[in-house]
This record gives sequence, C-alpha cells and structure tokens, in this order.
Amino acid sequence: MNKLLIVGTVAFDAIETPFGKTDKIVGGAATYIGLSASFFDLQSAIVSVVGDDFPQEHLDLLTSRNIDISGIEIVKGGKTFFWSGLYHNDLNSRDTLVTELNVLADFQPKVPQNFKDAEVVMLGNLHPLVQSSVLDQMETTPKLVVLDTMNFWMDCALPELLDVIKRVDVITINDEEARQLSGEYSLVKAAAKIQELGPKYVVIKKGEHGALLFHKSEVFFAPALPLEEVFDPTGAGDTFAGGFSGYIAQSENISFENMKNGIIYGSNLASFCVEKFGTERMVGLEAKEVNQRLKQFKALTQFDIEL
Amino acid sequence: MNKLLIVGTVAFDAIETPFGKTDKIVGGAATYIGLSASFFDLQSAIVSVVGDDFPQEHLDLLTSRNIDISGIEIVKGGKTFFWSGLYHNDLNSRDTLVTELNVLADFQPKVPQNFKDAEVVMLGNLHPLVQSSVLDQMETTPKLVVLDTMNFWMDCALPELLDVIKRVDVITINDEEARQLSGEYSLVKAAAKIQELGPKYVVIKKGEHGALLFHKSEVFFAPALPLEEVFDPTGAGDTFAGGFSGYIAQSENISFENMKNGIIYGSNLASFCVEKFGTERMVGLEAKEVNQRLKQFKALTQFDIEL
Repeated sequence: MNKLLIVGTVAFDAIETPFGKTDKIVGGAATYIGLSASFFDLQSAIVSVVGDDFPQEHLDLLTSRNIDISGIEIVKGGKTFFWSGLYHNDLNSRDTLVTELNVLADFQPKVPQNFKDAEVVMLGNLHPLVQSSVLDQMETTPKLVVLDTMNFWMDCALPELLDVIKRVDVITINDEEARQLSGEYSLVKAAAKIQELGPKYVVIKKGEHGALLFHKSEVFFAPALPLEEVFDPTGAGDTFAGGFSGYIAQSENISFENMKNGIIYGSNLASFCVEKFGTERMVGLEAKEVNQRLKQFKALTQFDIEL
Repeated sequence: MNKLLIVGTVAFDAIETPFGKTDKIVGGAATYIGLSASFFDLQSAIVSVVGDDFPQEHLDLLTSRNIDISGIEIVKGGKTFFWSGLYHNDLNSRDTLVTELNVLADFQPKVPQNFKDAEVVMLGNLHPLVQSSVLDQMETTPKLVVLDTMNFWMDCALPELLDVIKRVDVITINDEEARQLSGEYSLVKAAAKIQELGPKYVVIKKGEHGALLFHKSEVFFAPALPLEEVFDPTGAGDTFAGGFSGYIAQSENISFENMKNGIIYGSNLASFCVEKFGTERMVGLEAKEVNQRLKQFKALTQFDIEL
C-alpha cells in the first residue's frame, strides 16, 4: 500500500455565508486533505501542529479514518490556529475577519520516520519554509510532490515560495493566484510560465468554474458539478487536492492520462465538501456516494463524436 | 438536405477591446449564426433587414457560404443597425457605447416561401415580437426551435418575451440572464424554473467558463477551449448558437445525447470566433481546422475511469 504524506494546518474555523454561520468548528487544509484522501486505498499521515485546546475527539476522527496523526504536534498551553471568514453573496469571494496564527507561528514540522519514504507528498498551504522543511526530511525521493499555496505567500515570502516551487512536480493554485505568480492574464500563458518555475504540472482551480490541468502543450479540464445549493466553499480546494493526491497515491501512476482521473476525483470529492458547513459533509460521506457521483461526472462531460 | 431558418440582425459593429479597435465592420447575430452553421451540410436562409448603406460584398459573402439571403430586406434610403461596444480588461464585461436601431426599428420579418417548412428554426436575439412573427409564418411545425435572447428584452418587453419563450424547444441565454429570468441564483434551480416557462432544453452560456445544457434532471457541460489569447468576444454566443443549431439541423436528431454533440460543436466554433476581430476568423476558417480542434475538445474533456 502506498504512502501519502500530508502537511498542512489543523485548525479552528468560524464561517459565515449567506446561508448561515458557525461557531468555532474544526477545519484546516490538512484536515480536509486527509478526509478526502481517506476514500482511497493508501496509508496517510498528517504533519501539523495544534494547541492543547484542540479536542481529542477531532484527532480521534482522523485516526478512525486510518490517518496517522503521530506527526501532529500538540503544544502544551498553546492555542490552535484560528481563521474566521465571511463569504459574499456569490460565494466566489470572501473577507478574512480573523487570523490568529497561535501555535502555527513557530511550527517546525517533523515527518514521522515511517513516512520519510512516502511515494506521494501533498504540501498543503503553509509557509513555504515549512513546506521545504518537509521535503528536506524525506529519505527517498517521492514519486510525486504536490504543492498548494496562495497569494498571501506571493506577497510576503516570494523568494522562499519560488525555492519550494522549484522542488515540486505539481502546483495547485487558483486563477487569480496563477495570474499574480506569472504576470499573465491568459491562463494558458500563465500555466506555461509557471512550468518554467519548476513544476511539470500546473493545476489552476477556478472554484465553481472547475479546474484546469496543464502539462507542456496538453490541457485537461474538469468542471465543478452544477449543484442546486452551495452552502460553504471552505475547504473545497483542499478537498480537491486530497482527492487528486490520494487517487495518484493509490494508483501509483503519474502519467498525464491518469492525472486526468485524479482531477476528476478531486472535483468529485470537492462537490460534496461544499454541500454542508465545514467538514460535516466529508465526515458523513460514504464511498458509494462518491461512485454514484462519478457517474454524474461522466454524464456531465462525456460525449460521443466520431473523429 | 435539412433546412435551417435563421432570424437575427445583420449589422455594423464598431468594437474596442484591450487589444485594439475597429471602424464599422460587418456584424450582427444572424451573420455569425449563418457563418457558423455554414460548416454543416444543410440549406440555410437568413431573415433580416439592412439599409442600402450595407455593402453588396458582405451579402455576396453570405451567398458564397450557401446561405439564402432572399429573406434579407434591403430598405432603400435606410441605414443599417449599428452597435458599438467597449470591452473591459477581462473581456467578460462590456459597455454599449452606441445603439442605432435604424431600419431595425420597423422590421417586419418575411420568411421565404421555401423555408416555411424548415426543420430547425434559430431565432437570434431580436425583439420577441419579431421572433414570434417568424414562428407564425411557418407552415409546418419545425422539429426544433431554438431561441436566443438577452436581458434587454427582459427589462422592456417581458410579456412578449414570455409569450415567445412558451413556443420554443431550446433557449440559450447567459448566466446572468438566466438568473434574472428565473429569480434564482443557482443555475440548476434557474434552469428548472426556465423549463417551466416552456423550453424543454435550457442552454446557459458562461462565456470563457463554458456552457451548460439542462433537460429535466440531466445536465451536460462543454468548456470553452483555453486559449492563449482572446481578441474579441463579439459574436461568440451567436457563433455558438449557429454551431449548435447547424449541427442539429444536419444530424436531424434531437435526442439529449445528440444535443451534447451540438453543444460541443457550438463551443468549438465559438473558440475560433474570438481569435480575431469581428467575423474575420470565421470567414477564413476551414473545415479541417474545425475537425482538428474537435480532437482538442476530446483531449480536454474525455477521461477513462471504469465504473
């Protein structure tokens, strides 16, 4: 069974959307990535940090999904990272209301010994130095390293970000971030420039407008599933990344053709994530629902024109 | 050979985009629809009106594409409809600078006798009373009637618009218009409400984000081809409609599965339209380029996951 190493935040979120608001609930990139990847046949581990205010039941939930949490450091007397956001009416934009780094401020990631040979490494959105440190600790070269990042690091840690981007195979960012990183408005041109920075594969996430996978002159597109209602987009990008990296880890095939399937699995899982607040939908999700929705993705996108 | 009857504007446009600007060039919904549909094996005719300021060479161009122009009335001493628009940096929004209705103000469409039995009718964006008048003149019931419209008619001729919408099989509108017409933000809910108004099929055009086809609980999605450069979106929606209706007219198959192919052909042809200003790219386009790009659409969207 292949190993997937996940680094990212395990956190508290407080979310407000046009459909309601939550108190502090469990969130964080690694939480969503881990839950999403747990639908595949693999061994996974999360490297992260929380304070001792983080409830044991949430850690137990991760363990129950077969996720190794020995790499989640619990800082005594520390407070867990907290983010609060307000989504606008169209759910495509949001304001950050609160960011309390807390224990994340001094986070030194420690990769568990038995994951230093992981086949796939999923670097969730974090300071690029933390992402680099995880790669430094690997004892064998991973088959695939996937990096997620955001505009915040482009603004305040660009040299460090460029350093770690050089070291990864796949980068996943949203359309605005791709434009910012490349200086190109056209996503085709942006993806070409970003490939020059190192990653052979560029995934551009467009939220409700789907996701694009670029590699040299090839491009693949997965739509988001049209949904009657989207309650909360929080974690959708991380769930996408978890589905993508989890599928690749399970299948152990890093061809472009297989990555297409990974993009579809990522979109599939993300389509569930947004149906309820926070991680609620992902926690209750069953494998048969994922397979059922895969049929919807096929019906949505496959056509039969003879060439 | 099946017949496609097209009603719509034949016009002058003056366009400014971030990439340049044009003087008065030939445009109009029926022009784009006709050029696009000319890539299929069918007989087509345009019903429209121009002034005698409209150059014969442009009419000759339509004739050279095997389009019957006997239904294009030439008003002596009249001036042709003129539209001028300025596109913003993202090309997704535009300001109308000038709209001179001219001969369009009193347009009474006259369907040529030998197209009163057309199998497919494509009602391009025009006053809903003009669209209705064309349907009134049909002597046999068309196999498929497709209607394109816009928010302008929702604002100032809603009862007449609802009357003609009741009479069509397929409506094509953009996402914002679908929301306005239905009062629903979710496009899934919007499409369901619009089906209650009459059309069994609802096509929602999302510009660079592709197009959705809804029918009962089924949905199909065609992406826009990711392009290095988009010069001018003018006419892309009409080119899409021409590709869709032209393909359906040629294949004489109005099943949902075949409409999927029509949506792909529409997206394919529209992807060329935006590559140059006005009709320039469509006029120079060759069939082998269309077939080549169909392969790109397949590579872009088709995947191979066993279920």
